[in-house]
Amino acid sequence: LIIASTPVLVGATIAIVAVSPKCLSWWQASPIYQIYPRSFKDTNKDGNGDLKGIQEKLDHIVYLNIKTIWITSVYKSPLKDFGYGVEDFQDVDAMFGTMSDFENLIAAIHEKGLKVIMDLIPNHTSDKHSWFQLSRNRTGKYADYYIWHDCAHTDGTITPPNNWVSVYGNSSWQYDEVRKQCYFHQFGKEQPDLNFRNSAVQEEIHDIIKFWLGKGIDGFSINAVKFLLEATHLRNEPQVNKSHNPESISAYSELYHDYTTTQVGMHDIIRSFRHTMDKFSTEPGRYRFMGTEANQQENIEATMMYYGTSFVQESDFPFNFYLINMENLSGNSIFETVSLWMKNMPKGKWPNWAVGDPSTSRIASRIGKEYTNVINMLLLTLPGTSTTYYGEEIGMENIASENVTFPEKSPMQWNGNLHAGFSEGNTSWLPVNPDYQNVNVEVQKTQPNSTLNLYRELNLLRNNELPIHRGWMCYIWNDSNVFVYLRELDGLDTVFIMVLNFGQESIIDLKALVSELPSEATIRLSTNFSNTGKVVNTKTIKTEKGEGIILEYKTRKTVHTMEAFQVKCFVAEKACYSSALNILYMHC
Amino acid sequence: LIIASTPVLVGATIAIVAVSPKCLSWWQASPIYQIYPRSFKDTNKDGNGDLKGIQEKLDHIVYLNIKTIWITSVYKSPLKDFGYGVEDFQDVDAMFGTMSDFENLIAAIHEKGLKVIMDLIPNHTSDKHSWFQLSRNRTGKYADYYIWHDCAHTDGTITPPNNWVSVYGNSSWQYDEVRKQCYFHQFGKEQPDLNFRNSAVQEEIHDIIKFWLGKGIDGFSINAVKFLLEATHLRNEPQVNKSHNPESISAYSELYHDYTTTQVGMHDIIRSFRHTMDKFSTEPGRYRFMGTEANQQENIEATMMYYGTSFVQESDFPFNFYLINMENLSGNSIFETVSLWMKNMPKGKWPNWAVGDPSTSRIASRIGKEYTNVINMLLLTLPGTSTTYYGEEIGMENIASENVTFPEKSPMQWNGNLHAGFSEGNTSWLPVNPDYQNVNVEVQKTQPNSTLNLYRELNLLRNNELPIHRGWMCYIWNDSNVFVYLRELDGLDTVFIMVLNFGQESIIDLKALVSELPSEATIRLSTNFSNTGKVVNTKTIKTEKGEGIILEYKTRKTVHTMEAFQVKCFVAEKACYSSALNILYMHC
Ligand SMILES: [Ca+2]
Ligand SMILES: [Ca+2]
Repeated sequence: LIIASTPVLVGATIAIVAVSPKCLSWWQASPIYQIYPRSFKDTNKDGNGDLKGIQEKLDHIVYLNIKTIWITSVYKSPLKDFGYGVEDFQDVDAMFGTMSDFENLIAAIHEKGLKVIMDLIPNHTSDKHSWFQLSRNRTGKYADYYIWHDCAHTDGTITPPNNWVSVYGNSSWQYDEVRKQCYFHQFGKEQPDLNFRNSAVQEEIHDIIKFWLGKGIDGFSINAVKFLLEATHLRNEPQVNKSHNPESISAYSELYHDYTTTQVGMHDIIRSFRHTMDKFSTEPGRYRFMGTEANQQENIEATMMYYGTSFVQESDFPFNFYLINMENLSGNSIFETVSLWMKNMPKGKWPNWAVGDPSTSRIASRIGKEYTNVINMLLLTLPGTSTTYYGEEIGMENIASENVTFPEKSPMQWNGNLHAGFSEGNTSWLPVNPDYQNVNVEVQKTQPNSTLNLYRELNLLRNNELPIHRGWMCYIWNDSNVFVYLRELDGLDTVFIMVLNFGQESIIDLKALVSELPSEATIRLSTNFSNTGKVVNTKTIKTEKGEGIILEYKTRKTVHTMEAFQVKCFVAEKACYSSALNILYMHC
Repeated sequence: LIIASTPVLVGATIAIVAVSPKCLSWWQASPIYQIYPRSFKDTNKDGNGDLKGIQEKLDHIVYLNIKTIWITSVYKSPLKDFGYGVEDFQDVDAMFGTMSDFENLIAAIHEKGLKVIMDLIPNHTSDKHSWFQLSRNRTGKYADYYIWHDCAHTDGTITPPNNWVSVYGNSSWQYDEVRKQCYFHQFGKEQPDLNFRNSAVQEEIHDIIKFWLGKGIDGFSINAVKFLLEATHLRNEPQVNKSHNPESISAYSELYHDYTTTQVGMHDIIRSFRHTMDKFSTEPGRYRFMGTEANQQENIEATMMYYGTSFVQESDFPFNFYLINMENLSGNSIFETVSLWMKNMPKGKWPNWAVGDPSTSRIASRIGKEYTNVINMLLLTLPGTSTTYYGEEIGMENIASENVTFPEKSPMQWNGNLHAGFSEGNTSWLPVNPDYQNVNVEVQKTQPNSTLNLYRELNLLRNNELPIHRGWMCYIWNDSNVFVYLRELDGLDTVFIMVLNFGQESIIDLKALVSELPSEATIRLSTNFSNTGKVVNTKTIKTEKGEGIILEYKTRKTVHTMEAFQVKCFVAEKACYSSALNILYMHC
């Protein structure tokens, strides 16, 4: 540490440190709140959420102590595949409002000191997109904008070029009567894949990136990146089970997708997007975030490649789906899922976590109500950026309805009024969960021990305590019931230990695990509010089923430097605190 | 063009321009002379060429007007696979001399103003390498330096983990009695593949790069890059012919190498090598060159990826094997092979060419003596860097011998003495070609119309004439006999047209092809020296079988700006000549 030689500079440094989370960029400093706009807040009474609705509810996000909003697709779209088949990448769908509503929303978000990211969906368009219409007519440069191939045509039956199947099942080749050829689609047949081997197509996507960054958005979540390129040789993909009749193959899981996912060259395309985004990141505080979305559950190494290398930046992080896809809940399984990411993440990169998203059953419904709070506690005390799907801060549950494909997309529950305050119109596009009288923002604000209040307190704690948003994490213990980890920062004597119960009632002897531990510690926060503030004996730390507690104690000894923990501790970028100067410094 | 305001600066600019090929880096400015060291010059009379031999013959390279030497593998090696199974990456083989001989050679090369590149062979080692010995004994970190898997073992028969076969045929898995497991080898079983998924292995290669760059070498040709990574899932590779019995598969060409070549992540490894090399490129004039060697004949797009992108540098060029692998010689086939590369090369990159190499039959033997000169003329008048395999400058032929696997590796023919001057010892490791009395450097120096003199004159022309090393290339004509192209540079009124005959006698009307052409042009150089200097009628340009002529004429009109040639012209980086200042300038 080179101490600045003039008091003015020291003063300035302290001032900077005081106002912003130390050394972290905005996308690291705050969790991300993910809004599915159709279900968030309806202002024009048509039963569909809209941009003005988001704007009206920005104070909710401020209330949560969150600074980053992710608004999922609002592109002009026929709404097949829920907005992910885009008809115009440079317009918002009329259902959500106008471009001027969008601009007002961005301005309002920035006025409140918040940041906003949106989806980028480069792999395909809607078949209603003008490019596709021009392409099927072989008009000029658009002729090669999609992936067209001849289809054998005998007795009215179409034989596709190969056995490739779409993510949704059946052949990924669709015959087009206009062009008399087949086009390729990774998803629905209404979502033809763009031809990324055509540099003109790549240029279009760069223009779209520039368009939205020019409007002021702070970043993108890039959708379905592993699908960007396909092999040009068109050979059949190998069957998972070779003994099955090739004619019978129709499900996506029946093939190995060696020729339609993660092709060589794909990362360079994503990096070129990055390159364009970086040109908008030059002003201080205007860094543009890139997340990538590619669920490659089976291959952690492939997932980590989206981080780029130490010398070529790619995404800031690939979204982490491992907790979402985790099958059995236990202290051990949470530990394994967390450490899988931490162990494989390249050095110097930043982790991220999510347990819910717009295509996964709600946490309370999937895992159990009794674990909602402890899961929020996990997400907000791990190192890295967590994403919270709207409604998880109040523990919303799936709607149970036979006709509903996505029961986790039901309207946000704001209060006990009609449609839970989501809409003042007569209908809502999906039914509101009948539990809304008890599960809503308004009522939970008044309950000190509500999921909402815990969520808010957790964010406050994360923002205020350097060890939690910036320090080391050390694994302390895991068993079928609990996952225990510690957060500390060199130079600070406040240490936090999280004891999170993902099983049944448990008592552990923390003192036996970390010999340097004082015999008593304070519960800084518990999912059971009545325990908060209690002083407990570290030899017998008791948690109920689904309880999470954050213990706080003071020490001058760091755990990460102890022999026994040297392979059990992680920090994204080491920093030390100087209490004399109240600053963080590197190279310590 | 911003004209420098002081005469001093203008003078300095002119001086710089006068001494070096304008705006080109050393690896672009000169062809590469590729030496197979065992066959170049023997100084210790053991019948094997050595490092001192190369040093002794440096004046030959200077005489050729060449500035870059490529010395193929001299690493310590058991000489299986001719030096490409390395036993120690940080030592030279005793056959070639000592490390101090190597250092002397580098110093002598640099003293003469030449540059030198060598092979880097990262994919595998020799099984004699100490790493492999440690690995087969599972010693410490070396345990995972190679690709080990369990092999089923029943009744003395080994069943490899999958159907993968080596480039040389048969299973690429070899059982090791010491470790009781199989190791993977892309090439011979004495060449176990390194495990590039292990970052410690990657670090070793970086150390090797630093070691040799630290010794002063100017670059690397990186060998066999497409083989660096293999899939970890170990599934069988698909058969080219599905109806063949899987048990019968043993040849490399019987499988599609989807899981053992060009895996995602491979380019990042090569780029990391680049990154390390760049740290040695910071001094002016000390740029370190990287070429990559990956014969991906079937996939031009995959080949071009080794150039990197516009924003991430990879190799300076991937070596071009398309002329080497070309099957039938004609004006058309040469045009197609040249334009395949030019058309697919990313914008702003630099082409390269070769017709011979250490594992391909000699040009005179493969294509025909009568075409040797015209091929040299092609190589040295195309835009880009050409590689000349030693001996091609005198038209050496294969040796015909039943016991010789590599008849193109016979000793360099220096003169009419014993062993063609290659060695003064009793033997030579391969027989000298009996034609050496007529085909040797000494005798060809005295023959004005020799292959050697033409080669030398071509290099002189290339060095002296800006349009040839720096200007546009425009395709003018091709048919079964001739390939015709033009070289010009904006601001210079000297234009060159190459009329190269790769078929039978031909007469073409050049004037009809390029209307602006004057009615007469001068033959600046011909493979038939007696034609050099003649003035010819551009309406009837005659070439004999295998003849190449370089026509020169003056004009102020450029062809690349003409409507008819707009898609037929190429320049790596546009530059213009100012005759008033005698400088080249960009942005013109
Ligand atoms: Ca695609
Ligand atoms: Ca390999």
